[in-house]
Order: sequence, then C-alpha cells, then structure tokens
Amino acid sequence: VQELLQFEMNKDFIERFQIALNTRDDAFIKQVLEDVKPADISALLYEFNTEESKYVIDLLEVETKAAIINDLDPDIRKNFIKNFTNEEIIDIIDVLASDDAVDILNELKTKVREEVLAGLDEEWKAHIIDLLRYDEDVAGGLMAKEILKANVNWTVIQCIAEIRKQAENVAKVYSVYVVDDKDILLGRVSLKRLILSEDNTRIEDIYDKDVISVQTYFSDLEVAEIMRKYDLESVPVLNVQGQLLGRITIDDIVDVITEQAEEDRQIMAGISESVEEDDSVWRLSRARLPWLIIGIFGGLLSARFIGLFEGDLLRVTAIAFFIPLIQATGGNVGIQSSSIVVQTLASPGLIDESMWKRLMKVFVVALLNGLVLSLLVFGFNLLLGGDFTLSVVVSVALFSVVVIASFIGTLTPLILNSFGFNPALASGPFITTINDLLGLAIYFFTIHLLLWN
Amino acid sequence: VQELLQFEMNKDFIERFQIALNTRDDAFIKQVLEDVKPADISALLYEFNTEESKYVIDLLEVETKAAIINDLDPDIRKNFIKNFTNEEIIDIIDVLASDDAVDILNELKTKVREEVLAGLDEEWKAHIIDLLRYDEDVAGGLMAKEILKANVNWTVIQCIAEIRKQAENVAKVYSVYVVDDKDILLGRVSLKRLILSEDNTRIEDIYDKDVISVQTYFSDLEVAEIMRKYDLESVPVLNVQGQLLGRITIDDIVDVITEQAEEDRQIMAGISESVEEDDSVWRLSRARLPWLIIGIFGGLLSARFIGLFEGDLLRVTAIAFFIPLIQATGGNVGIQSSSIVVQTLASPGLIDESMWKRLMKVFVVALLNGLVLSLLVFGFNLLLGGDFTLSVVVSVALFSVVVIASFIGTLTPLILNSFGFNPALASGPFITTINDLLGLAIYFFTIHLLLWN
Repeated sequence: VQELLQFEMNKDFIERFQIALNTRDDAFIKQVLEDVKPADISALLYEFNTEESKYVIDLLEVETKAAIINDLDPDIRKNFIKNFTNEEIIDIIDVLASDDAVDILNELKTKVREEVLAGLDEEWKAHIIDLLRYDEDVAGGLMAKEILKANVNWTVIQCIAEIRKQAENVAKVYSVYVVDDKDILLGRVSLKRLILSEDNTRIEDIYDKDVISVQTYFSDLEVAEIMRKYDLESVPVLNVQGQLLGRITIDDIVDVITEQAEEDRQIMAGISESVEEDDSVWRLSRARLPWLIIGIFGGLLSARFIGLFEGDLLRVTAIAFFIPLIQATGGNVGIQSSSIVVQTLASPGLIDESMWKRLMKVFVVALLNGLVLSLLVFGFNLLLGGDFTLSVVVSVALFSVVVIASFIGTLTPLILNSFGFNPALASGPFITTINDLLGLAIYFFTIHLLLWN
Repeated sequence: VQELLQFEMNKDFIERFQIALNTRDDAFIKQVLEDVKPADISALLYEFNTEESKYVIDLLEVETKAAIINDLDPDIRKNFIKNFTNEEIIDIIDVLASDDAVDILNELKTKVREEVLAGLDEEWKAHIIDLLRYDEDVAGGLMAKEILKANVNWTVIQCIAEIRKQAENVAKVYSVYVVDDKDILLGRVSLKRLILSEDNTRIEDIYDKDVISVQTYFSDLEVAEIMRKYDLESVPVLNVQGQLLGRITIDDIVDVITEQAEEDRQIMAGISESVEEDDSVWRLSRARLPWLIIGIFGGLLSARFIGLFEGDLLRVTAIAFFIPLIQATGGNVGIQSSSIVVQTLASPGLIDESMWKRLMKVFVVALLNGLVLSLLVFGFNLLLGGDFTLSVVVSVALFSVVVIASFIGTLTPLILNSFGFNPALASGPFITTINDLLGLAIYFFTIHLLLWN
C-alpha cells in the first residue's frame, strides 16, 4: 500500500535533502524523488533556492521536468525559467500538452519565445502559434489542441485504430469527439460505449448528439459556470463555424475557480496583488499599502469634515461618542449588500428580476434592518440614561445610514461590473471608505437638522 | 448545431411556459422540455411555485425527474420533496447514483427516510445504509459506491465482460480500479489502455500502480486539495485496511470548492446564513441582522468608552476628528492580516515556518506599514496646519493600532482554526468590531499619555 500513500514533505526530509544537495549526492536525490509526483516535487522546490532547484530538475527525466515546471506557480516559474537555455526550454515544450506549452511560452520574453518557437518542429509550431493568439482568460486560451476525433462515417474498429494513433498525445481521454468531413462537431462517443460496441458498428449509430460545447471567445468564468452546472469533465471548443478546435479539461477549470475565489478574497480584504504568507516582507507590504493609504486619505478627509462641525462638538461633546457606531454600521451594511450582488453576478441567469424590482427589495430589506437597529440603539441609549434628543438624532442618522449604505453597496458592484471591473472590489475597503464618509455626512447633517431646531 | 447550443431561459419563454402551465397544456410542456438538460429545468423551476413545479416534474420520465431533483439547491429540495409520496421518492432514489441518493435521504425526516429505505431492494438498501453513516463533509459522505473494479488476475477480455455488467450503473467511467482477492486497491487501468491492449493480456501486466487514494475520514476540503493538486478527475476511497469502497468524482469536488468560496465570502461580509438576492426579504434580513447587531453593540461600547474621556474631548475637541481615521485603519489592517493567514490555512503544506518566524514577519511588515502610514498622516496634518502635539499623538496612536491590529488579525484565524471554526470568520465583522474597540482604546490611551504630560 506504500505507493498509494501521499508523499509527505517534512522538516527532516528537507534537511536530509539539503545535505544531499550540498554534497551533490545525485544518486540519493534521484532515488528519493523516483516515486514522488511532479506536483510534490514542485512544492519541495519552493524550499530551495533557484540554483539548487535547477540542479535537482536537471537530474530528472524530461517528462518529469516538464510536469514539475508546469506545476510551478506562474510568478515563480517566470523567474525560474530564465535559468534555462533555449534548447532546454524547447525540450520541455516538446513534451507538454499544447495548452500548458502556451502558458509557458506566454511567460517568456518575446525574443526567447521567438527563438524557442523556431526550434520546434513545423506541425507542433503551427499548433502552438494557433493557440498563442488567444487571451489567457478565454476558452481559446484554456483549450488544448490534443483531442481524440472520429469521423461520423467510421466504424468502431476504424475509430479504435485512430485512437491508437492519436492516444499517445492525449493524456486524459474521456470521450472521442465525432465530426463530419468539414470538422464540424456533431457529438461524442464515450470510451465505455466504444468498448461495449461491436467492431463493425458505425459511429453514426452509437454517438451521442447531445454534447455541450463552448466558443473560443467564452470567458474562463463562463466556461467554469457551464462545466460546473452540467457536471462536465471536459468541454469541446468550437470556432464560430462550429468546427472543433480543442477541448478544455476540468482540472484547468478547477484552477480557474480556485484562483478566482482567492482573488475575490484578496480584493475584499483590500490586498492589491496576489500574495502569500511566505512572500517577502517587501512584497507583502507593497500589496497592502495601496488600500491602506486610500483608507488613510478617507480618514483624513473625515477629520477635515468633522472639523467643520467643531462648533457643534463644543456644544454637545457626546456627539463624538457615536461616530464609531455610525461608521461601523455603514461599513457593515455596505459590505453585506455588495457581497450579495457580487454573488448574483457570479452565477448569471439566476436573477431575472428587473432592476426596479431588485432595488425595491433592497429598499425593503434596508428599511427592516434600519428599523430594527435604530430602535435597538434608541432603547439602549435611553436605558443607559442618554439625552433624549441626542438619542433620537443618533437613531435617525443610523437609520438613514443603513438605507443609503444599502443602496451604495448594491449599486457599486453593478456599476463596476458594467465597466468591466471585478465587482468584488465593491466589497473591499473601497465601499468602506465611501460609506465612512457618507455616514459621517449623514450623521452631522442630521445633528444640524434636528439638534439645533 | 442546434443541439450544441445551451438552453436559454428568457422572459418570453417563461411567460409562454406559464400559460401552458395554467392551461395544463401537457403536450407543449413535454415537447419544449424534451431537449432541455436537467440542470436547466431545475433553474427553470425556480421561476414557478411548488405546485406548478411538481406538476411539470410529474410529466417527465423518472430519470429526468431524478436528475432535476438532484440538481436543485439542497435548501429548496428539502421543502420541495415534502410534496412527494414515499413511492415517488423510492422511484427517484432507485435511479440515482448512491452518493446523490444519500444526499436526498439525509434531507428527509427520519420517519420518511426509514419508510423509503424499507421500499428499496435489499442490495441497493445495503449500499445506501453503508453510506448513510458518513458525515456529508468527509470523503465517505462524498463517495459513490458505483465503480468499475477488476481483479488483478483477470485478462483484458474478462475485464471488458465485467465492465459490460457493471457499466450500466456507472455514469462516468474514467478508469477501472484494480484490486486483489481481498478487495485491497492495487492500482488502476485506464479505458484507453484497455482499448489498446490485446484481449488475453493480463491486467497484472498493464495496470498502473501509481494511484492516489483517500481515506473515508478525509475532509471534503482535503480531498479537494488533493484532487486539485494532482489534477485528478476521480479518486478512489479506501477504508483503513486499504479496501476499495467507492470513488469521488471531480464534479462533486467542484461543488465543494464553489460552496466553500461562497461561504467564505459570506462570512467575510458578515452574512450569517447562505442567502441569495432572490431570497425573501425576511430571510435576507435574518441573515444580515446578527452581525449588524453585534456591530451595533460594539458601537455602543465604543460610545461608552469615548464617554469616559469626555473631559479630554472638552479640552481638545480636535481629538474627535481622528476617530474615523484610527478606526478605519485598524479595521483594514486587521482584515488584510487575517485574510493572508486564512489563505495559508486553505492550502496547508505551503508554510513550513515556525510560529515564531511567522510572527516576526508579521511584526516587520506591520512596522513597515505603520511607519509609512503614520509618517504620511503626520506630514499631512502638519501641512494642513494641524496642532504639532496632536499630530504626534495621532501618528503614534496610528502606528500602534497598525502593529496591534496586525497581530490580532494574524492570531484570530489561527485560534479559530485550532478550535475547529472556519478561520474566515476572522476576516469578517468580528475582527472589525474588536479592532474598532482596540483602536479607540489605544488612541485615547496615547492621548492621555502624551497630550497631558
């Protein structure tokens, strides 16, 4: 059962490995890595410096080497690959699937990329160049050209002969796509079906016409949503004529979903670039400072704004006591509202209501929440012996803040989305800063209106 | 190409469908739904009431019916299924895969569940009961028992005969698992390999020993991480003896990842139960009020706290101006820190640093951020003609808030995680409320220390 267990990377192992590296104990390195999966070797390499990692990788077979490089974090890979000669890169590109090869080529400097392309054999080069023109975040950029394809007029035995020819290039075979003479996708036939059919059965009689496909221009998130909804493990990619160009497999989509979730989380937390805890202090600070500084300017603006009401504060100091309450509630309500909209935007088609209906609903929920919260605060303020008039003012202001923050929170992601920005931005420090200022404005405006009349 | 297009649900269609429903136009309903995928019918049913949905579903074949019910949102399904008789539920359970059947059984009331179980045939019932004992969020609860299994001593032709027998029950076949006489998993053989091998080749000679498996007790997130890391489309589930019990397919894991991301986002936004924009006003409010109320109590506590310093505010009103700045920065820094830790916790194994080293790094980043921000604020305050002493006080307080909020933000998710709570809680209103109070305390303490000495 030993082979079935996952590789466990622990401190002892890393220390032993480091010693082997220092003494250039190639035999040891090769032996311990023999049964380790490329994804685990990639993780292991993060523990060593570039030169050491390169040394380890060079001891391995080219297929393993390529798989490890393919598994590296793109940011790290981009720097790591600078240590490879063009010939080494060509060898790696040669054994990768076309979608992975394109990802790596896209990370190279233009000059290196051109040199590497020139070193590939003609057919492979044409394949790759065909894929290079797509953006990374559309179906065309995610697809691999390696697919099993059968003509609808073939028999099962012809189809199996073709699989024998093609299969070497296709790592994961889920089904064979069925096309007509013009390469137009007609359907698919599962390997299970092929195995269970007689040799001279015609593909025409056994293929499944009911196949979901995507177009090259579909966004990665659209593809993810389609594959998730219909539980697909792979989806064929067509051009506008309906011709079969390639396929996208679910493992790439799992990466898309995971990265999107991580990006949304970072945006909501006000972190401006993708960072991890083990990044450098400098990089961590750089990712965090921009939104903190924006927050600081919001705070300084608040300070100036409150300064305008210094006279009011001098008359009733207690006004200052409720600044945090107003501000925190505005922030919380805004983030709640925006995150509900962001979620709707993430699964399109769920909502078919008109804008007017949606806003009416936001309004009703806001009224309800605002009422509950302001009554609660009013009760507590009176209970704790607060001034009656000030208690009224605080509750009225709180109520207004809840309603207005709900609208800002609802509209901001919709507006951001319509301009092509990630709507999750609206759940981050952005909305908090705006709501902070707005909350203060409402509070002091209410004071002016109610307290001195 | 018509069949390749996705079903598009638009307002016109829904209106036409509603008319057909009102007039009980069964022929129309059956005809328009004929080529529509179950996932799309599920989405369509959300537009109609329970009685109408039940009417539509009853017009369809039992396989489609089962697939639609399987695709429904669990919360909605739980209520919807109350309208089914036990016999209807039995028919549905009979055609589902075991993992999906168990999900639905788990949503039934105990009495109904027992009655339904009693109506299943013995073998199927034993299968199901075997799965019912696992929690939903562990590998055992995610696995389906339908797998293709071959004995290592068989030949290819024997294996294909067995596939013929078993295949009917297994929807998606990726590979055949190879076991010994005691059902211990030895490896797997891909369908591609089977197709390309001679009939009398022994499985022993062609199977791949290198297969990654999980144990029944692995958490859903662990399984997701393993499948993501190794790009698996399915993973076998073993008991502690190494016997093969079932498999988990990637479509279920995509759901796990998507739901986890959604849950994290809701927690970060301070929404206490899973809601969507088209939920009822009552449900939306109920999901939002708990954290808002906690925030309100935080705000009221802040008010009491500031009240203790009324004397200070009377002497220097400008103290009040900087409350929002201190508070917003504390909140932002706390959320940033916690979300970075949450991310590390989500991909275990990435960090091998000791706690001490991690905290040192947090400290250095906090010092750097704190320094930049407090100098910035100091400069601006002087530039805008602020009082020198107060400017010093504000900057010192700000610096302290950044450092302390960094630590709170880092430690809270670690503590929550070690007690088995979702660490994402620490990126929500929780950390903001704590940091608000802490920020105020630091600010007024600094004032007391510096301003009056």
